[in-house]
Amino acid sequence: MKQITSIQNAYIKSLLQLQEKARARRQSGTFLMEGKREIAIATKGGYIIETLLFLPEICSEVEARQLSENAELIEINKEVYQKLAYRDTTEGILAVAKIKNFHLTDLKLSKNPLILVAEAPEKPGNIGALLRTADAANLDAVIIANPKSDLYNPNIVRSSVGCLFTNQIATGTTSEIISFLKERKINFYCATLQNSTGYHTQDYTNPTALVVGTEATGLTEEWRKQATQNIIIPMQGEIDSMNMSVAAAILIYEAKRQRGF
Amino acid sequence: MKQITSIQNAYIKSLLQLQEKARARRQSGTFLMEGKREIAIATKGGYIIETLLFLPEICSEVEARQLSENAELIEINKEVYQKLAYRDTTEGILAVAKIKNFHLTDLKLSKNPLILVAEAPEKPGNIGALLRTADAANLDAVIIANPKSDLYNPNIVRSSVGCLFTNQIATGTTSEIISFLKERKINFYCATLQNSTGYHTQDYTNPTALVVGTEATGLTEEWRKQATQNIIIPMQGEIDSMNMSVAAAILIYEAKRQRGF
Repeated sequence: MKQITSIQNAYIKSLLQLQEKARARRQSGTFLMEGKREIAIATKGGYIIETLLFLPEICSEVEARQLSENAELIEINKEVYQKLAYRDTTEGILAVAKIKNFHLTDLKLSKNPLILVAEAPEKPGNIGALLRTADAANLDAVIIANPKSDLYNPNIVRSSVGCLFTNQIATGTTSEIISFLKERKINFYCATLQNSTGYHTQDYTNPTALVVGTEATGLTEEWRKQATQNIIIPMQGEIDSMNMSVAAAILIYEAKRQRGF
Repeated sequence: MKQITSIQNAYIKSLLQLQEKARARRQSGTFLMEGKREIAIATKGGYIIETLLFLPEICSEVEARQLSENAELIEINKEVYQKLAYRDTTEGILAVAKIKNFHLTDLKLSKNPLILVAEAPEKPGNIGALLRTADAANLDAVIIANPKSDLYNPNIVRSSVGCLFTNQIATGTTSEIISFLKERKINFYCATLQNSTGYHTQDYTNPTALVVGTEATGLTEEWRKQATQNIIIPMQGEIDSMNMSVAAAILIYEAKRQRGF
């Protein structure tokens, strides 16, 4: 059993890079995650765990091995664990897993898909919230258009509470995604203030993508021009903005309601 | 015109206490806020501004005066401003405003009210999000049961982007609120996993309160026992939890949809 007890160890330093830098994740093709539940969910979601790092005082070798049959196990000490782990409530286990590439063409859709598209979401917490709602609604897929950050940003991984691994996810440019939807005859409804009709007046029982933009800038013109229909969530208050993840949830659950859950 | 140029000034120190301590807010009956838009919204919402502190390089005396006719104006320098202000994007103005007491009996309800009740929300960001959705839906009121923190916590003020001032808000114990609703013959629907029916099967076109609990603990038994009906948002994913503000938004907008907006 390999043991690492120094935070100066070159491998540990490389793991810190994985947390801090998208480029390090891209170059190595891996990311770092923590927590038994999240690691179990990732495994179930088809992620390949390369390495498990466990703190024996909290997580036994047997428990670690249960999370992945083939991963290399490394025993670490408290100092190394605390350097790598984010959480206060520690579970004593970290994993290095292979990233997925999120290709549009890898998506496996049902015959009557319901998809969420989010354009250029910026805040990790918002992306996590979108992924949680998508999981709850059992959507076919979540597609991120023109992503601003890679999805293995530790803040996204954490705020998704595992839903990064339970959803089918793809990324692409807005043009690529519009082509993808059109080729598959999926109607797409774009949440926007311009030339739009009440979201609740539309029929989402056929193949549907719901498209949301950021609070600050909304959807780009390409989406608004090509949309099957632009839709709006009526707002009747003093403040005219709605959090992206809240708007997405309202649209998704209206579609689910129409489809009888 | 009074000028303050030292962060050691006793009044400035008392303002820092207002930011940091609920007790200081309670004892003085005031809170500190920042930003032209927020201050204007608070004034419109009936808040009394006692004092405006402005940084003349960014916000002129005339601009400050436009925000409140009767407030005392104090000119501050950059050092004092940076000590008091939270935001990076500075607007050069802060206000000391009188707190409201959020009594249930002060609420003015329409004939067919739609109300949100949230029990013991903990995260300031969640409370801010609830208030934003409540504003967008133009609810009659938001009622916080068994509040865990005072609502003038700076993180709540900020995350509500002014919606703390646009909504009618009340606080109370769960028992007080249940009595309040029953006396006024307002049906209340409690979001819970136990003995519940799909939220979309209920009729919210009569006087209605939608009641949500925290993600971690859900609603207390008192709510669940007394409810007109316990309701559930169907979740069909791997992860069985939904953010409080997302759940509230789904319920509120279903009620709004039934009521024809």
